[in-house]
Amino acid sequence: MVDYVFMQVKSILTADQFSRQDLDLILKNTARIESLLKKHKQLNILDKYILATMFFEPSTRTRLSFESAMHRLGGRVVSAVGMQFSSMAKGETLYDTLKVMESYADICAIRHPVEGASIVASKSISIPVINAGDGAGEHPTQAILDLYTISVHKDIAGKNIQIGFVGDIKYGRTIHSLIKLLSKFNASFTFISPAEIGLPEKYKKDLNQMNIKFTETNDIEALTECDVGYITRIQEERFSDHATFDQFKDLYVINKKFLKTCRKDIIIMHPLPRLNEVSTDIDSMPQAVYFKQAEYGLYSRMTLLLYVTGLLDKLDEFS
Amino acid sequence: MVDYVFMQVKSILTADQFSRQDLDLILKNTARIESLLKKHKQLNILDKYILATMFFEPSTRTRLSFESAMHRLGGRVVSAVGMQFSSMAKGETLYDTLKVMESYADICAIRHPVEGASIVASKSISIPVINAGDGAGEHPTQAILDLYTISVHKDIAGKNIQIGFVGDIKYGRTIHSLIKLLSKFNASFTFISPAEIGLPEKYKKDLNQMNIKFTETNDIEALTECDVGYITRIQEERFSDHATFDQFKDLYVINKKFLKTCRKDIIIMHPLPRLNEVSTDIDSMPQAVYFKQAEYGLYSRMTLLLYVTGLLDKLDEFS
Amino acid sequence: MVDYVFMQVKSILTADQFSRQDLDLILKNTARIESLLKKHKQLNILDKYILATMFFEPSTRTRLSFESAMHRLGGRVVSAVGMQFSSMAKGETLYDTLKVMESYADICAIRHPVEGASIVASKSISIPVINAGDGAGEHPTQAILDLYTISVHKDIAGKNIQIGFVGDIKYGRTIHSLIKLLSKFNASFTFISPAEIGLPEKYKKDLNQMNIKFTETNDIEALTECDVGYITRIQEERFSDHATFDQFKDLYVINKKFLKTCRKDIIIMHPLPRLNEVSTDIDSMPQAVYFKQAEYGLYSRMTLLLYVTGLLDKLDEFS
Repeated sequence: MVDYVFMQVKSILTADQFSRQDLDLILKNTARIESLLKKHKQLNILDKYILATMFFEPSTRTRLSFESAMHRLGGRVVSAVGMQFSSMAKGETLYDTLKVMESYADICAIRHPVEGASIVASKSISIPVINAGDGAGEHPTQAILDLYTISVHKDIAGKNIQIGFVGDIKYGRTIHSLIKLLSKFNASFTFISPAEIGLPEKYKKDLNQMNIKFTETNDIEALTECDVGYITRIQEERFSDHATFDQFKDLYVINKKFLKTCRKDIIIMHPLPRLNEVSTDIDSMPQAVYFKQAEYGLYSRMTLLLYVTGLLDKLDEFS
Repeated sequence: MVDYVFMQVKSILTADQFSRQDLDLILKNTARIESLLKKHKQLNILDKYILATMFFEPSTRTRLSFESAMHRLGGRVVSAVGMQFSSMAKGETLYDTLKVMESYADICAIRHPVEGASIVASKSISIPVINAGDGAGEHPTQAILDLYTISVHKDIAGKNIQIGFVGDIKYGRTIHSLIKLLSKFNASFTFISPAEIGLPEKYKKDLNQMNIKFTETNDIEALTECDVGYITRIQEERFSDHATFDQFKDLYVINKKFLKTCRKDIIIMHPLPRLNEVSTDIDSMPQAVYFKQAEYGLYSRMTLLLYVTGLLDKLDEFS
Repeated sequence: MVDYVFMQVKSILTADQFSRQDLDLILKNTARIESLLKKHKQLNILDKYILATMFFEPSTRTRLSFESAMHRLGGRVVSAVGMQFSSMAKGETLYDTLKVMESYADICAIRHPVEGASIVASKSISIPVINAGDGAGEHPTQAILDLYTISVHKDIAGKNIQIGFVGDIKYGRTIHSLIKLLSKFNASFTFISPAEIGLPEKYKKDLNQMNIKFTETNDIEALTECDVGYITRIQEERFSDHATFDQFKDLYVINKKFLKTCRKDIIIMHPLPRLNEVSTDIDSMPQAVYFKQAEYGLYSRMTLLLYVTGLLDKLDEFS
C-alpha cells in the first residue's frame, strides 16, 4: 500500500487507494445514478464547478466520457489535448504547467504518457486530481467502471465469481488495476495467454499473499468455466519483432461458435478498442456487454466526480 | 428515393429525405428563431441535452456553427476533431467508435471524409445523427441554410425563381444538395461553367424526370437574367494538371462592374471560403448575402437541432 | 496615441487604449471579483453570452484562463485552435474567416502570430474583440493582470514604486505592454539585461517624453533596490547563433541566496513559462507571486469580459 498522506484533497490516483468500503459506496451510488438518469437527463449538482480535462496524450473516448459525465451533473468543462501544451514544448516542467492550471478549474482529470504523472499532479495542485491513465501505470476509473459492469451482472458480494482474463496479461494496464479491485471481493482468476505475455511476477506474489486462487493457461477452453470473460487486444507495439506478434495476434477469437461452449450466463467484456479478438457476430448477443461498459463508464465517472468533490449526498435530492 | 426505414430516430442524412412539407416546416421555424433571437439571446430549450460534434476531418466554421446553435438553445457540447480519434488509428471500425460515443450525447453531428459515413453512423447508434458533410457525398444542413437564405430574399413559394449556379458544378457538393431541395419549389436553373466541370449526367436526368427547366452555358452573361447567383470556388485539387486549373481558376469573377449588368435585386451567394471568384469590392453591397448565409446557418441549425429532438413546438413558449 | 474610432464596440486591442481612469475602474472591479469569488463559485452574469476563443496559434494557459473566466461568469464558450482553421489553409483571408464567425459568438478572444491581427479582427466584426496576443505586438490582458498583481502587493496609487525588469527586455512583449500601463502610475524602472537585448529606442523616447525615470544596467545587483522584480525568459529563438544565446541564457538566476540580498518586501513576478531564471527553491517563499499571477489572470479576464460587454455594474447584485 502506498502512502497517500500527500493527498490534501480527495484524488483518484490508483486502484490501490480504494478500501472495500469505498468501493461499496461507489458501486451503490453508480447504480443509483444509472437509475436516476432514466428519469432525469441531468442531475444538476456540479453547476458551479469546472472540470479541466488535461490530456497530454489523446484519448477521445475517455475524455468525452469525463466531459459528458460532468455535463450530466450540470457542470462545466475546459479542455486541453496533446500538442497544445506549447509551454511544455518550451521546456516548462509538468509542475509549473499544472500549478498555473489550478486556478482555472475545481477538478482536474489528467491523462499523461508517463507513469506517475497524476501523482506529480496531485502533489502540485490543491484541487482534486483524477488519473485518467498514466502510461504503463494505472487507469483507476477504467477499473471502477469494469468493476461496476461485473457488479451489474454478477453478485460480486456473494458467492465466488470466476473471472477469465484473455490476451495480453503482461502489459494490460486495465487488467492489473481490475485485479486489485476484485481482490477485495470474492473472486478467482483464470489468466489465459501465451506464457510470453502472462501475468507479471509481482502480481502473482500479491495474489498469493492475499490467498486469492488463480490459474494460468494458454488454452482458451479455460474460459468456458468462467462467469466473466475479460478480453484484451494484443498490441503490436509491445513486440520487438513482427513474427512474434503475428503468431499471437489472432490466437484467441471469441465468436458465436465459441460462446456456445461457454456458460450461458457468461458476460464478455472488453476495454476497447477491439480488433479481431472479439468477433462482431456476437455484438447483439446478451453476453456481449462491452458497449454497455462505455455507458457504465458514464455513470461511474459521474459518481467519481461527486466523490472527489464530497457531494455524493446531494443525490438524495433526486428521486 | 432512398429507404430510410433504418432510421429509428429522426436523423438528417441527405437532402433527399425532406418532403416539401418538411422543408416548409423547417423554413417557417428558422424564420421564427431568427426573429426570436432579436429579443432573446438564448432560447433555453435543450438545456439538458448534449450535442457531440464528431469531426473526423476539420471544418471549423461548420463545427462552430453547430456548437453555437446548441449553446443558443441552452444546450451543452462535447467535441472531438481530427487526429484525436486515436482508437481508429489503432484499427477500430467507425461502428465501434460511434457505438461507444452514443451514451455520451443526445445528438451527434458527424463530419467525415468518406461518403456514406453518416449513414453508417445512423445505423450504429440510437441517437439522432446529423450529417455535417461526408466527403463527396452530402452536406444537407448547408443545403437547408442555402434554401433559407434564398427564402429570406425571394418568394420561393410563389412565382418561378431563376437560380444561376456558377463555377465548379461537377464537384460542388453544396450545389447538388441545394438542387434537390429547390426542385421541390418553383425554380429553374442556369448552370454556368466550363463544360469540363459541368453538371453530372445523373443530376440532369433527375431534373428532366421532374420536368424542371434548366440551361447550361459557359457564358457568365447568363447570370444577368437570374434572381439568385450561387457562386462556387474552383478547387485546384479537382484537377490532375496545373494547366487546366490555371485556365479555369479566375474565369468567372463577380465584381461591382459585373453586378451593374445584373438584375437590381439579384442576390449573390457563396458557400465560402471564396478566393477571387467573388470580389471584395461587392462585400458591402446589398446584393452580397454570403456573410448573412453564415448567420442564417446558425438559425437553420438551431431549427434542425429542435427538429431531430422533436422539440420544435417548444418555440411556442417564447414570444 | 492611436486613433480607435474604428472601434464600434468596446474592444481590447492594446495597452495604449487605457486611460488612468479605465485602469482604476478595471483594478477596482478585479479586486471586487477576487473577493466575491471567495463566497460565490460563480458570478452568473454572462449566462446568455458566448465567447469564441480563436487561437490561430496555441497558447493553452491563456486560452484556458479566458474560458475559465467565461465559465465563472456563467457564460458559454466555443473554441478553435491552430491547424483547425482549414479554410485559411485554402487561401481564405483573416477578414473572411472572422466575418463568418461573428454570428457565432458575442465576444471574440483572438490569438494570432501576426502583429496587428486583432486590429484587423476588430475592424472586420461587430462584436467586441479581445487581443489575446498578436505576435511581436501586444498582449494587453497579460499587462492588465501584471498590473493587478503589482497593485495587490504595492500601493501603486501612492508613493513611487521601483520596478526592475530582468532578462529579455528587447523582445519581451509583456514588458513593453506593462511599461505602458505603469507609466500612468507613479513608477520608475530599472532595466537589467545585456546591452544586446536591452530596451528598444522607441520605448526610451516614450519614457523620456513622459518624464519617467529609468536606468539601464547589466548588473543584477540593481534589483536589490527594487520593490518589484519582473523576470523574463531569454528565448533561444531570438538569437541567430547558439554561442550568443549560451552566453546569456543563465546569466541571471533569481534564487533563495540572491533574494536574501533584496528588499524584504520585494515581489518576484514572471509571465511564465520559466526555465532556470527563477529557481524553484523560492517557489514557496512569500516573495514569489508568479503562480498567483495566473490566478489574478482569471479575475482580470473576468473583469475585462464584463468591461467589453458593458456589464460591470451587474457585480452590484452580488455581495
